[in-house]
Amino acid sequence: MKYFEDYRIGERFVTRGRTITEADIVMFAAFSGDWYPLHVDVEYAKNSPFGERIAHGMLVLSATSGLMPLYDMAIVAFYGMDKVRFMAPTKIGDTLRIEMEVLEMRDKGEIGGVVTFENRIKNQRGEDAALTITKVMIGKRPVE
Amino acid sequence: MKYFEDYRIGERFVTRGRTITEADIVMFAAFSGDWYPLHVDVEYAKNSPFGERIAHGMLVLSATSGLMPLYDMAIVAFYGMDKVRFMAPTKIGDTLRIEMEVLEMRDKGEIGGVVTFENRIKNQRGEDAALTITKVMIGKRPVE
Amino acid sequence: MKYFEDYRIGERFVTRGRTITEADIVMFAAFSGDWYPLHVDVEYAKNSPFGERIAHGMLVLSATSGLMPLYDMAIVAFYGMDKVRFMAPTKIGDTLRIEMEVLEMRDKGEIGGVVTFENRIKNQRGEDAALTITKVMIGKRPVE
Amino acid sequence: MKYFEDYRIGERFVTRGRTITEADIVMFAAFSGDWYPLHVDVEYAKNSPFGERIAHGMLVLSATSGLMPLYDMAIVAFYGMDKVRFMAPTKIGDTLRIEMEVLEMRDKGEIGGVVTFENRIKNQRGEDAALTITKVMIGKRPVE
Amino acid sequence: MKYFEDYRIGERFVTRGRTITEADIVMFAAFSGDWYPLHVDVEYAKNSPFGERIAHGMLVLSATSGLMPLYDMAIVAFYGMDKVRFMAPTKIGDTLRIEMEVLEMRDKGEIGGVVTFENRIKNQRGEDAALTITKVMIGKRPVE
Amino acid sequence: MKYFEDYRIGERFVTRGRTITEADIVMFAAFSGDWYPLHVDVEYAKNSPFGERIAHGMLVLSATSGLMPLYDMAIVAFYGMDKVRFMAPTKIGDTLRIEMEVLEMRDKGEIGGVVTFENRIKNQRGEDAALTITKVMIGKRPVE
Repeated sequence: MKYFEDYRIGERFVTRGRTITEADIVMFAAFSGDWYPLHVDVEYAKNSPFGERIAHGMLVLSATSGLMPLYDMAIVAFYGMDKVRFMAPTKIGDTLRIEMEVLEMRDKGEIGGVVTFENRIKNQRGEDAALTITKVMIGKRPVE
Repeated sequence: MKYFEDYRIGERFVTRGRTITEADIVMFAAFSGDWYPLHVDVEYAKNSPFGERIAHGMLVLSATSGLMPLYDMAIVAFYGMDKVRFMAPTKIGDTLRIEMEVLEMRDKGEIGGVVTFENRIKNQRGEDAALTITKVMIGKRPVE
Repeated sequence: MKYFEDYRIGERFVTRGRTITEADIVMFAAFSGDWYPLHVDVEYAKNSPFGERIAHGMLVLSATSGLMPLYDMAIVAFYGMDKVRFMAPTKIGDTLRIEMEVLEMRDKGEIGGVVTFENRIKNQRGEDAALTITKVMIGKRPVE
Repeated sequence: MKYFEDYRIGERFVTRGRTITEADIVMFAAFSGDWYPLHVDVEYAKNSPFGERIAHGMLVLSATSGLMPLYDMAIVAFYGMDKVRFMAPTKIGDTLRIEMEVLEMRDKGEIGGVVTFENRIKNQRGEDAALTITKVMIGKRPVE
Repeated sequence: MKYFEDYRIGERFVTRGRTITEADIVMFAAFSGDWYPLHVDVEYAKNSPFGERIAHGMLVLSATSGLMPLYDMAIVAFYGMDKVRFMAPTKIGDTLRIEMEVLEMRDKGEIGGVVTFENRIKNQRGEDAALTITKVMIGKRPVE
Repeated sequence: MKYFEDYRIGERFVTRGRTITEADIVMFAAFSGDWYPLHVDVEYAKNSPFGERIAHGMLVLSATSGLMPLYDMAIVAFYGMDKVRFMAPTKIGDTLRIEMEVLEMRDKGEIGGVVTFENRIKNQRGEDAALTITKVMIGKRPVE
């Protein structure tokens, strides 16, 4: 278990990867209720600037959220995000991973501290698919 | 279809609602791969500050993203978010809707313009479950 | 395997049962894209004539379609339905089964014949939840 | 919101589209429990008259049911269907949309009226995949 | 309904088939929480000994468990398995069926008896994908 | 990453937990195609020895398979299981975790070795829900 005290500003991690499949897009359209034709209508997508269906922005954030080593992090709460940008379209067959960097750490006393991560969601071509500035409250090491 | 020219700063909408169920939490844990015990382990959650399982932040964003009247909006692209804050926990049985307000509009020329929405995700008790500042590129009305 | 020749007008079957759960309603809303509030918004449903969420009509037809002994039927094609009526609301926790009766048989020559079933979808209170007149093309017993 | 008084006999609409994917067929087989080999066994389907897996008839009805502009319709209840015919097989990759036409309107007094739609489910080749005569009870415009 | 007395040692059955799709692998990764890259990361799998993604062993057991004619078997309880071996990788597009053989029968008195099956899970190339020795308690024919 | 050399006979681990919900049972019935009434028919289950629906044995194995710290294990292949026993029924709301113990280790040379785990799947009442003897081929630490 990694506690607040165990993080260092500038520290970097790379997560494992996950390929975004056609099934993921259908499942996310289903879950979210967002069946915008650009995501789920092949004929419409052919005539779009992308030429094919692309993944929802929220799919990219959701499907990669579980790539982080969550069970090793002493998470207290997910505060939010200060910035989310979608930079390159995620297409069927793209494999995403996150390059995480600790940007900032704020000690909040006994309860823990807020760690700010810059998360670059990269595809297999090395492009940034998305970028988030994510803030998580992380607990301190319990006193024995 | 609502085009860039049809929006007004200060305009407000309220979406329909959706109840977040235990099934939603299981399905989102499955889709995202985030099985953090606070979301999916009843025994763990009993001893947490919330006393019960709570929905993932990303679930709240994803499940409400399809509540917006997307098929009536001439969306070109989802730019990103400038701020995301989770304010109250979303528990099993909570019903969420979005109160949207047009905060800002930037004309980008022929292609359309960026509309910035403040989206307050409210539960049935009137509490803010989450807040996002969301930027969407919206197309202009086609010339006949 | 049951072939066209093996059916008799007036013959009746009762299928096994399946309980319709909250998860089924969420999953069907997701699959179909029909998130009408009567099905998925607890607050809205409370104020409806039913007082609670009810299953989609198509959910009732879909979830019971697999209760029929399909793998024992020499199905060639599903022709269609001559009538579909929804008679009693299906609520969370209702258990459905089908009472099937062979209404009509039309020999179509070598390929098989069309068997018309009256399918009564009954709940555990003995009420008719729905009724369909369903036509299926069923093959003839292969000549050895 | 479109009320009973807002419909006209002969009025037509075309919905947005949705591509039926392999994932949809697997998900519908799962939900319905109908794993008939024609839908889910590639080897079996190769030797069928269709030469490949085809979508379930109920899948076609269910997956298109959410394409209708449901949230803009003052639906009171889904009465049923007077006719359902499956005309062309729906294959993986086909994109379906509904061409709806108001066939009949029956005023039922204060509660609303029954609107009968002829729904042609068309694929991207312009073929009729299925046709339904669908009856929906639609409410009247509330008196202010 | 087939009761304990209706089985014979050495009796063999072959089930219907099911093609394992990319969607199945994604859905099983989701359900189980096992996103090991060999199953869901195309780039990783390319460099593995298999050269492509392969199905989870548990997926193979789960997806074929429903191919057995369960509703015709007077099952009292699933005892367990004495042996499970995964012999050939199951790849996307493989179609699995089970060749079942009754290996052993133990009468347990009034309640029924334990039937031991050797289940060979075969793919469309005739290879053994997996083998299980499975023990099921099966009830006796009720006395009229 | 934990390699073959890093395991010790007699070593024990306890995984995180996961509550088995009604949604899990429906989702697993759907995925596996096993809709045996004991799992999915409330009325049938009421009259069974268990008095309520119970989870599929394979659901218990599948849903817990992802609880193991898989991404930290240098897994080469999942060999199989030497024994699987279902000991106590898993009911809706039960929370499962695995107590793993290294029973045996067989060095297979350069490729790695087979580690045999005794996995006790325990519920929140401390009962053994199931037990497996599971064999996994684990790679050796790469030479730098």
